[in-house]
Amino acid sequence: MTRALILGGGMVGSAMAMDLARDADFAVTVADRDPDALDRLTRAYGVSTERADLGDPAEIHRLAAQADIVLGALSSAMGMQTLRTVIETRTPYVDISFMAEDPLTLRDEARAAGVPIVVDCGVAPGTSNMIAGYAVAQLDPCEELEIFVGGVPAQRRWPFEFKVGFAPIDVIEEYTRPARVVEHGQVVTYPALSGIEHVDIEGLGTLEAFNTDGLRTLAQTLDVPTMREKTMRYPGHADKMRVLRECGFFCEEPLDIDGVQVSPLSVTAKLLFPMWTYEDGEVDLTVLQVTARGKKDGQDTTLRWDMIDRYDPATGFRSMSRTTGFPATVVARLIAADRFTEPGLHPPEVLGAKPGLLDEILEALAQRGIEYRFSAS
Amino acid sequence: MTRALILGGGMVGSAMAMDLARDADFAVTVADRDPDALDRLTRAYGVSTERADLGDPAEIHRLAAQADIVLGALSSAMGMQTLRTVIETRTPYVDISFMAEDPLTLRDEARAAGVPIVVDCGVAPGTSNMIAGYAVAQLDPCEELEIFVGGVPAQRRWPFEFKVGFAPIDVIEEYTRPARVVEHGQVVTYPALSGIEHVDIEGLGTLEAFNTDGLRTLAQTLDVPTMREKTMRYPGHADKMRVLRECGFFCEEPLDIDGVQVSPLSVTAKLLFPMWTYEDGEVDLTVLQVTARGKKDGQDTTLRWDMIDRYDPATGFRSMSRTTGFPATVVARLIAADRFTEPGLHPPEVLGAKPGLLDEILEALAQRGIEYRFSAS
Repeated sequence: MTRALILGGGMVGSAMAMDLARDADFAVTVADRDPDALDRLTRAYGVSTERADLGDPAEIHRLAAQADIVLGALSSAMGMQTLRTVIETRTPYVDISFMAEDPLTLRDEARAAGVPIVVDCGVAPGTSNMIAGYAVAQLDPCEELEIFVGGVPAQRRWPFEFKVGFAPIDVIEEYTRPARVVEHGQVVTYPALSGIEHVDIEGLGTLEAFNTDGLRTLAQTLDVPTMREKTMRYPGHADKMRVLRECGFFCEEPLDIDGVQVSPLSVTAKLLFPMWTYEDGEVDLTVLQVTARGKKDGQDTTLRWDMIDRYDPATGFRSMSRTTGFPATVVARLIAADRFTEPGLHPPEVLGAKPGLLDEILEALAQRGIEYRFSAS
Repeated sequence: MTRALILGGGMVGSAMAMDLARDADFAVTVADRDPDALDRLTRAYGVSTERADLGDPAEIHRLAAQADIVLGALSSAMGMQTLRTVIETRTPYVDISFMAEDPLTLRDEARAAGVPIVVDCGVAPGTSNMIAGYAVAQLDPCEELEIFVGGVPAQRRWPFEFKVGFAPIDVIEEYTRPARVVEHGQVVTYPALSGIEHVDIEGLGTLEAFNTDGLRTLAQTLDVPTMREKTMRYPGHADKMRVLRECGFFCEEPLDIDGVQVSPLSVTAKLLFPMWTYEDGEVDLTVLQVTARGKKDGQDTTLRWDMIDRYDPATGFRSMSRTTGFPATVVARLIAADRFTEPGLHPPEVLGAKPGLLDEILEALAQRGIEYRFSAS
């Protein structure tokens, strides 16, 4: 029996709890500050719960001491501090928080802790990194790597045709932070929302893809001369966001409005975020495309993975929660079963490069309804 | 010698001052609260000036007592109060202020004053009304009247491709106030910014035209079963404005932002209005199209007037100031010369309906560089 501690009982933490609770090999505890969320989880999945302020490192220490493995499902703002604290507890950790900081700066601490720590283990970053790690191991050389990912509502509503399955402020961050891409082996930056192109998605129609800062660890860990990550939305979304951004509506810097200091972003958030929030039961879609180009046995080869996933009415979980939470529970199982034991801090591309591991992970995701279609040409 | 008093020394008041000062028959005084503006006017055109708070009716009384005719070039917010006060002084008045209130409600007071009072006497409303009044007098019946008007910068700059030659808050008002149009003889309303269509302008290219609430007095004074007024901008402008409006960025109603009450419009104004402000010497364009359809001698007839005007480098006056200010100075001359003497409150369509008057007015505007091209078919 593996004692699993899930940090955070939000949408993604709940999907993790549901998935692990179905498994007789796991005893699941979810920690959160919100007693209502915890009550719901106990009733729905029979998991144990701990009410705790996870912003307090002492609480993380207390809870991790009773766990064999920890899964992180906290907000991006809490990600780095939580990672540092869990490493101190020397407990294996699988985290999905999309932290702004570079987790690889904690490599030495993680190695010293002597347990496996997997970060960025959601969908993208996450499964996309595993696929990238696999593709680079398959090709010799891998010349180009392209990751297109997006979450959109099934129902397109003017003007933005967009809702978000995680914290909307993190979307604004995606739309403002300069996008790092790799060209000719060098990291170069483009403005976010630039480089718009159209992508036809089988079964969905046309989306647009634009530069966002999503390569993260891949830019450091993989030796591929051309790498880019783009975010996908329904066509027209990026231009509207660019208008708002370039006019200053995303600025945190306060303006003086008749003697009162007001951040334009705070007003924008108040106006837009309610429009960007999914209704209960509303259908969302997650789309991921990873394309790797290079040589295999001296031949030009393109490896391609396509995933399109949608809201699951059976469990009531949105696609974004499932595609983000399940890679982490799948990897937690691999660690619990000693299928992945390497001590230290690992981005998911490390797992993808291990022989056989990607197939096993994608097979486990398929069992959970998330299907990656592979093609080689 | 006619003593003319110009209320307001802004861009339009300055254009009026320049135009009347060239005329040996006029002694011109400009009143404004800004001494710098008055200094510039004295140096440039040799006019007399009076520093005065024109929000104070007593000041209007004091100044009008020394004038034979008054020209109004104040902001829309001050328009109605000033009109009421000038009527009390029993001085002939020609006003261009785009007041939100209905000036026709002061008809009785104006008739009792026994002098001619002409309101809405700019470009549109203004010249457009004169043309409309003329067209309705020519056709029997006039079945349809269409007024398309717009002011845009010559240089199109993303995202709005727009600047404004008057108070930008009045533009937001145009984009939010429901647009009254006449259909089947009934006044009906459409949302502002609706009904977008493309219009090809000879020598300029394609603009878009959309519903705004610009018919004003025409909806009451003319018996035409179909009347509409649309505002023109470069294509794409209206949709961007609709996004901002529908998201709430034009709302005056305050939001609670972390305990502080903030009107979204005040933030939007702070961000956008600097982008909408012309640089010194920057070229603006004014475009006006008036089309009247009906019968003449029993034959289907279309009367059409086209005007395109631009910044005048010789005088440094933008087109919007000239096309707005000169109709008022031309009408002031007609009143001073006893060519128009009818006591009471008149919208400009009344002048257009007088035999010979429209030709005389358009000829005077042409002498000032503002050319209306007429065609009948």
